[in-house]
Order: sequence, then structure tokens, then C-alpha cells
Amino acid sequence: MSSANNQVTGFRFATATAGIKQTQRPDCGLIYSEVPAACAGVFTRNQVVAAPLQVTRPRVLRGKCQAILVNSGNANACTGAEGIKTAQQNGKTLAAALGVDEELIALASTGVIGVQLPGARLDAVVPNLVKERAADKAVAVAEAIMTTDMFSKTSVARLQNSGQSGTILGIAKGAGMIHPNMATMLGFVLTDAHIGAELLQTCLTLAVEQSFNSITVDGDTSTNDMVLLLANGQAGDAEILPQTPAAEDFQLQLNNVLLDLAKMIVRDGEGATKLVQIHVRGARSAAEAKEAARSVATSSLVKTAFFGEDANWGRIIAALGYSDAEVDAELVDIFFDQVQVVNAGLGTGSEQEALATEVLRHKEFCVTLDLHLGEGASDYYTSDLTYEYIKINADYRT
Amino acid sequence: MSSANNQVTGFRFATATAGIKQTQRPDCGLIYSEVPAACAGVFTRNQVVAAPLQVTRPRVLRGKCQAILVNSGNANACTGAEGIKTAQQNGKTLAAALGVDEELIALASTGVIGVQLPGARLDAVVPNLVKERAADKAVAVAEAIMTTDMFSKTSVARLQNSGQSGTILGIAKGAGMIHPNMATMLGFVLTDAHIGAELLQTCLTLAVEQSFNSITVDGDTSTNDMVLLLANGQAGDAEILPQTPAAEDFQLQLNNVLLDLAKMIVRDGEGATKLVQIHVRGARSAAEAKEAARSVATSSLVKTAFFGEDANWGRIIAALGYSDAEVDAELVDIFFDQVQVVNAGLGTGSEQEALATEVLRHKEFCVTLDLHLGEGASDYYTSDLTYEYIKINADYRT
Repeated sequence: MSSANNQVTGFRFATATAGIKQTQRPDCGLIYSEVPAACAGVFTRNQVVAAPLQVTRPRVLRGKCQAILVNSGNANACTGAEGIKTAQQNGKTLAAALGVDEELIALASTGVIGVQLPGARLDAVVPNLVKERAADKAVAVAEAIMTTDMFSKTSVARLQNSGQSGTILGIAKGAGMIHPNMATMLGFVLTDAHIGAELLQTCLTLAVEQSFNSITVDGDTSTNDMVLLLANGQAGDAEILPQTPAAEDFQLQLNNVLLDLAKMIVRDGEGATKLVQIHVRGARSAAEAKEAARSVATSSLVKTAFFGEDANWGRIIAALGYSDAEVDAELVDIFFDQVQVVNAGLGTGSEQEALATEVLRHKEFCVTLDLHLGEGASDYYTSDLTYEYIKINADYRT
Repeated sequence: MSSANNQVTGFRFATATAGIKQTQRPDCGLIYSEVPAACAGVFTRNQVVAAPLQVTRPRVLRGKCQAILVNSGNANACTGAEGIKTAQQNGKTLAAALGVDEELIALASTGVIGVQLPGARLDAVVPNLVKERAADKAVAVAEAIMTTDMFSKTSVARLQNSGQSGTILGIAKGAGMIHPNMATMLGFVLTDAHIGAELLQTCLTLAVEQSFNSITVDGDTSTNDMVLLLANGQAGDAEILPQTPAAEDFQLQLNNVLLDLAKMIVRDGEGATKLVQIHVRGARSAAEAKEAARSVATSSLVKTAFFGEDANWGRIIAALGYSDAEVDAELVDIFFDQVQVVNAGLGTGSEQEALATEVLRHKEFCVTLDLHLGEGASDYYTSDLTYEYIKINADYRT
């Protein structure tokens, strides 16, 4: 995507090399709004919460934010009182350099847990970050916050209905520890629409549920997950009010941006070679559909069979059977894309299985499970489990 | 273990090659008691239940059993009405050959899901199984029921207290799909003690909870899991009655046998190179301790770090944090064997971590997590996650 597509009126970006990562590559970034923006946030549900989240969460809850300072290479998690002090100090330094209230600064970190963040190195690059900030460096920020990511992740949508002309830009990182709620993932979503903090929070919560909370790579949830949504109103359009067509369109476009980013994260899942949509329908409720989809999407045996390109529906039906969703095995249908491999709980034969094996050779496909018990439907996105996953995670710190 | 150690008065065993597996190796076994035995059973909680379990469960619930017919190579699961008919027919054939009521026959299968079991091949070897049954072939049965198992699993304990002289012999199989409740595992426990079906069920349920329901290899639960416990009273001792010292000793020895088998299953976990005990103490309750231990034991990131011999306690504390057990990160202590790596939520430094890395080089070690919130304690046993796991499960059917 060209840099022109990754611009949002009134937002500026910068990156720097603070030396937090051992490589001499950019490892921190600044996201800045020219005016204080309305904001919303979704935070990890892990009971172990990293220092930057402890500092940022109460600030975001007040509904205003003007700048985000983010680093990779160190998560500043399990670092106690010293870690909190470091995050606060970095926030103070940035606030002073920008000339804004420190309560308007959000902090985010990703990387190794349990090692003190060298905060002085971050402080040292703040003047450069502030000086170099520019409208066309969003992709550079996406690159600076990568850890085991193989590619940077941005997604853009345009608001077009109901007199709106704004943009929604999403930046994310994440490739491992990817599991609701929410994954070692950071997401920063920026819009120049004019929209209040309360509606923003409602929209973000809904959008996260069907995107970042519906993906899995390895079932692990991190201490640092955070998605922030900032709206600075600089497009100059009318305020988007709840329960209006403009709000509906905003929700739709926000969903698109977040689902797009979420799929990128699965596609980039550590060692992943496939992106598989698990679509469950016919469950007793949407919640049971999601639980059934989750159970199949997180099964190591199912994920390994995807890697082996083996249409092993027995593992899928077993994972369905141990989910908390109500299942009647004799009603279940299973499809790989359009190929039906299970009809009313029984295999449809070796010819169908051969066709299904063809589907499994694709990089992306959909497994549909119809439970025939009700109207509930839901999706989950998962990757295959591969040698490379083991390699990446056995060697991560060494 | 020598064959003499694997004998229990009044029990006989046989194996045969029915050709259910493609290899020309024994793939079915008979376990026979000379008199009808009291029996108890624990069955998969998967909602998809294999045909042999559907046939066997109501029989076992009546509390009497005299013979078990077991095969590997085919699970007879997701095989519908035809699968049930096959299991019933095999039971009839064996009952007729033994001259016992067919309601006294238990059936068990393990292997691929969704393919009809060639029941006629099993029927065909029944005369041989009956003819060849002998007291010293328990290990042969353990070998015949192996699927991806690398070694056969038997364990023996002797009753010695309160005038008892009996034996408890356990036979198990399982190496993948190992997760409560209960794993693709079959367990057959045979004793010549004299003990009623009701007490037997109480003892078995307790023993399974702290053994087979406290292990994990890959988090998957199969459609075929079953543990049967038969007591035929042929040791000639007095009946063991509830709430007596003899009952306590029986429970203790039964626990030992099942935990011994459970650990063998983890040690033999598909691709596993390490057996790791996750010991949680100081939880608010035993149930929360088990939930916390389960969360750490099933984390793919933790298990991969074990394989990488990386004392990555950050992943352990993260897995603890997303468990359903109450956790206060600032109180948590973590040890690798005797080496403390986390004190009150903070790392104890690189020297301790170097010592912990030494511990990780061992084949077996214990990770202790002290939550300092109460008296609850529990254990979980897990393996590392390796390249070999992927290889075994990506290629299983091909």
C-alpha cells in the first residue's frame, strides 16, 4: 500500500532506533494527533498486566488521548514498581517535548517479559521522534513495532455514507501468543472522523469481538495486549451520533479494518503456512457457535492435520465434541470449502475426501460445521501448526 | 518388568493379528476373568462417543464384567448404526466362544476415526484369542493396543495392609490426544481383591482425577477414552469395605498404579522429550490450583520453551495470568526444581536463570508456582512440544 493511502488528516508518525532491540533497527514509534482526540481502548484480560497498560488504561478511560509512544524488544511486564516508574517517566518526557498534558500520552510495549525496560534510551530518542514526525510514516511505525512478525500490518477504510469523508487507518503487530483475549498484539486505529468517546468505545468493543477476539495462533494470551482507537475530527465532517446511518457505516468500516488486520496476524502466525476460517452454523446460539469454532480452531491435532494437508475430519468432529457447545454427532455436517466430507455424522467416502485434500492444498480455505440445532453462527480464524512454530518459539530468546 | 510381575490371580490374556492395522502385528487383545468380576468405569466426556463405548457403558454401569475385547488400528467412532452393530456383533461372538452372557463383555477400540471397523476380521480371531488365553500375557495385550505409542505401559502394585494380599495390575495405551477428560487413552485395571462395584467406582473416580485427568500432551480429548477397573476376588481375602484401612490402602495403591501409567503416557507423549510436573501451591482452593496448573501445562509457548531448554518464566507467568484461577502477580514465586527464578513477581536475576537452564536440561523436572493466596495445591504433568509432535500428527494417516 502506498504511503498516501496510509495518511489520516491531523495524524503524524515517527520512528527511531533506541537500541532496545539488539539489532540496529527502528524499535520505537510515535503516533501523534495535532489536536487531542477522543479515544477508546480494549485491554488484555490477562491478570498479569504490563506496566505501560497499567499507566495507560486509566488515561484512556477518561476518553482523551493525543499521542502514543510504543516500543518493541521489551514488554515492560513483570517489572514491578520500577517498570511503572519507567513508563511514567517516558510519558513525561514525551509530554514535555510535545507540550501536551502527560495524561494525554498512551504507552505501549511488546517484547520479552521480565526484564527492566531501558527507559533512558527511549527518553533519549524522544526529541528526534517529535522533530521527525510526519504524515506519511504510518507504515514505518508498523515496521518498528514488529517482533516475530514477518511483515508489517496496516489497513485502511474510507467513510463514504451520510456526508462522511473520513478515513480509518489501522496499524497492528502480532504473530505469536495470538489468542483471545486478545493475543500479544498491539493495535492502533486512527480516524479523522468526529465521534465521541462513548460511541467510540461501543464501536471498538464490537469490532474487536469479531476480529482480534476471533483469531488464534497458539492459544496464549499476553500481558501486553491493547487496541487503541483515536478520533480527532480533523476531516471536518459532522459528528457521528449513535444509532444513525453514519454510525452504522463507521462500525462497518471499523469492522473491516480490524478483521483485515486480524487475518493478517493469523496469516503471519508464527510458522503458519495456511489461514483457515472455521465457520460454525446451526448452533443453538451465536455464543455456542463461537465456542464450537474456538474448540476446533485451537486443537493442536486439527491444526497439525491442516499442516499435513490431511482431510482428517475425525479430529475436527472430536474437537467439536469436547467443546462446551451442545452437539449431536448424528446431525453434524462438515465441509472443506464446498466439499462435503461428513453428512449427518458419517463420512461421505473416499472420493469426497480426495476432493477435500485438494482444498487443503490451498493457502486459505474454510471449514464449515453445520450442527443443525438452531440458528447460531460464528467464525474463527486459525493457522496451521508447523515445524517452524516450534523453531521460532524454542529459540526466541537465544 | 518380568511377566511374573504382571499376573493377577484369575485373569488371563491373549492377543491376535486380525489385520485391522496394515502392519502384520498383533492388533487386538482379550482380557478375561475366570469368574464374573465387579467392575467400575470412567468414560470420555466428549459428546461424540465411539460405538464400543456406547455398547459398553450401560453394561459396566450394572457393575459386572468378565471379559474385555480391545482392538487398535480403528476407533469405531463416527460410524453410526453400523458401527454399533459391529461392536455388538463382536461382543456376541466373544460371549458365545467363552460361554458367558454377552452383557458381561466390554468392548474398546482405538485408532482412526470415521472408518467402519472390519468386524468380521475381529470375529475371525476370537476362537484363537479364547484358546490361547494365558496368565502371563498382560504385556502382550499392552503391546497389541499401541497406536502411536513408543512403548507399552503396565504398572503393578501389591496390597499388603489389613490382611490383604492382592495385586493391582494396570494396562494403558495413549500418546497423543492426551488431555482431560481423558485423552485417547485406554486403561484396564485388574485386581484379585474382593471389593464391591460401588466402592470400586468411588475409588476409580478419585484415582482417575489425580492421574489421567491431570495430564496433558496436546489438549485434545478423544471420543474413545475409557478406563475399566475389574475386581474378581480371586486372591481369597476378605471383602474390602468402605471407610476401612483396607479401603484406604486399596485407594493408595490404585492411585499409584494410575499415576504411574499417566506419567508413562506423558513421557511417551507424541514427540515428547521431557516430563514436566507443574506443581501449584498457595492457590485459594485445590480447584483453582488445578486450573492454574492446567493453564501452564497446556500452553504451547511454555511447552515449546521446555523443548528449547529456555527458562522463560515470562511465558509461565503469562499462562498463569490468563487462567481462571485468582492470581496476584506481585505475590507469585516460581521455581525450577529448587532454583527460584521469580520472587514476588520479579525475576531473581541472570545467575538464577543460568541455574534454572541447567534444570531444564534434565529429562524430568518440576516447575513450582506459589500463588501465596491460600492453601490450595495441585499437580499437572505435561510434556514439551517438539518438531516430532508435528511430524507424527501431520503424517498420521498417510
